[in-house]
Amino acid sequence: MQIPTFDDMLAAHKRIAPHIRRTPVRVSDHLNDLTGAQLFFKCENFQEPGAFKVRGAANAVFGLEDAAAARGVATHSSGNHASCLSYAAMRRGIPCNVVMPHTAPQAKKETVRRYGGKITECDPSTNAREATFARVQAETGGDFVHPYNDPRVIAGQGTCSREFMEQADGLDMVVAPIGGGGMISGTCLTLATLAPETRVIAAEPEQADDAYRSFKAGHIIADDAPETIADGLKVPLKDLTWHFVSRHVSEIFTASEQEIVDAMKLAWKHLRIVLEPSSAVPLAIVFKNAQAFAGKRVGIIVTGGNVDLDNLPWIEG
Amino acid sequence: MQIPTFDDMLAAHKRIAPHIRRTPVRVSDHLNDLTGAQLFFKCENFQEPGAFKVRGAANAVFGLEDAAAARGVATHSSGNHASCLSYAAMRRGIPCNVVMPHTAPQAKKETVRRYGGKITECDPSTNAREATFARVQAETGGDFVHPYNDPRVIAGQGTCSREFMEQADGLDMVVAPIGGGGMISGTCLTLATLAPETRVIAAEPEQADDAYRSFKAGHIIADDAPETIADGLKVPLKDLTWHFVSRHVSEIFTASEQEIVDAMKLAWKHLRIVLEPSSAVPLAIVFKNAQAFAGKRVGIIVTGGNVDLDNLPWIEG
Repeated sequence: MQIPTFDDMLAAHKRIAPHIRRTPVRVSDHLNDLTGAQLFFKCENFQEPGAFKVRGAANAVFGLEDAAAARGVATHSSGNHASCLSYAAMRRGIPCNVVMPHTAPQAKKETVRRYGGKITECDPSTNAREATFARVQAETGGDFVHPYNDPRVIAGQGTCSREFMEQADGLDMVVAPIGGGGMISGTCLTLATLAPETRVIAAEPEQADDAYRSFKAGHIIADDAPETIADGLKVPLKDLTWHFVSRHVSEIFTASEQEIVDAMKLAWKHLRIVLEPSSAVPLAIVFKNAQAFAGKRVGIIVTGGNVDLDNLPWIEG
Repeated sequence: MQIPTFDDMLAAHKRIAPHIRRTPVRVSDHLNDLTGAQLFFKCENFQEPGAFKVRGAANAVFGLEDAAAARGVATHSSGNHASCLSYAAMRRGIPCNVVMPHTAPQAKKETVRRYGGKITECDPSTNAREATFARVQAETGGDFVHPYNDPRVIAGQGTCSREFMEQADGLDMVVAPIGGGGMISGTCLTLATLAPETRVIAAEPEQADDAYRSFKAGHIIADDAPETIADGLKVPLKDLTWHFVSRHVSEIFTASEQEIVDAMKLAWKHLRIVLEPSSAVPLAIVFKNAQAFAGKRVGIIVTGGNVDLDNLPWIEG
């Protein structure tokens, strides 16, 4: 297990700078009034491919030696990592192979293809995915870029908090969603050196609360097949991300499906930002645990905005 | 007729700075590829009340002497001007009276009330509105802040382009929607001094093309009751705004209803910004007249984002 360092993060930021956006930080007086906190939203939904995962993906892609790069990259993902890795590979002009269950939404497949990614479909089971991925990787020799349990990816995600601390002074805490833990790990990596007094809080769906239960138990607990609208957060922690979560995260809070949807609506109403459900979990837990955040300067990482506007999950319409 | 000056704009910017946001400028590689232009989007939809009109409204409200301010402000509007004026008045702690047809959408009324504005409803005819407004103003003594034909309002709107020119270097042209002409006039006011080589282009719905026809005819033509989804752009030019439009605007282009909706969809897909229909007209005309913009650095003012997500006008679903 190779733990990425603060210097890896600095090197990543230099490497990926031409390929990412320094996304804006937004505030809403009205959300501050409603929560009693001072909220700062780092809008990673405004990355070109719509999610923070372009940071880690670009770090992996542009860190490859030319010979390895020529063989391309490969991953399995049906979410933002697949499109962000395709995007980064397109910018370097190398192949990107993605293994995806045939049940993945058509829109996700289209995005990957728009960025030149090649999709190999598999049955929607872990066994099928692993077998198909092994075959694809053997055929192509592509460098495997795991969606989160990869030191290059974690170092890349850490660049977000570095910008955030430059853009918003003196944050008492930074809140990010937790699924596999890539963004949270990058946040821990950066803040542990840059702002050790700033607490890192993770936000997780109640219905996929394996990180919460792992955190309380002191070891990784992986759920089999959690069901939540926050579809980016269904995956379990792995050794590298557990390293950061277990050492640097101050607290994990969870939110219900309804609370996640309510947060999406509030963010639209008061920030004019459409969050994907996974991105709405931090705001949901801030509302739910107001006493923990009142009077604090709270940074929230808006991880992505890839949602289908024609099919918004407004439960109460 | 009191024509606002460049110095009025500078004074406005200083006056309103604590009450507005310096909104971000966004770009999309993909929209650039699609149009062949280099597009820069100034996101006024991210003002706290969701529209650029807070600039002019705040300039009028905070420019009042204390005695006049105590009597408050008044206007007639069923759109963003009503909520932005209420918002500015709330920040100064003075009354705001708004005359609005009883047919106005409930959401608009709620926003005005959320900011402490007092609504007096009238029948949806010009006669009824003028009579009701005269009565409200006589009763309250409130200062009338016209939605656009007011030098304080135009000077306030002009502050947007001042920021824009600092944020995006060397724009060849700036495109903004045109209805009554407040934003376009402010843009002309500022650029005529700050960047006289930058062309000002106005974008108008085909179905409410009175400004286009006025521009061609050389005098104001006012339509009776145009019908377009770009509901912020139905109002006619007035003497002050005609002054700027007739002298400084380089060209007016128009877009159909379908082209406006298509532009909304493209902006969502590639910028993750939800435009209100009025705000989508500039992008629509850039797509429609690609040859006029290809190879140019084009600034687009995104005027507002107050749209009902539950009721998006996707004509083709």
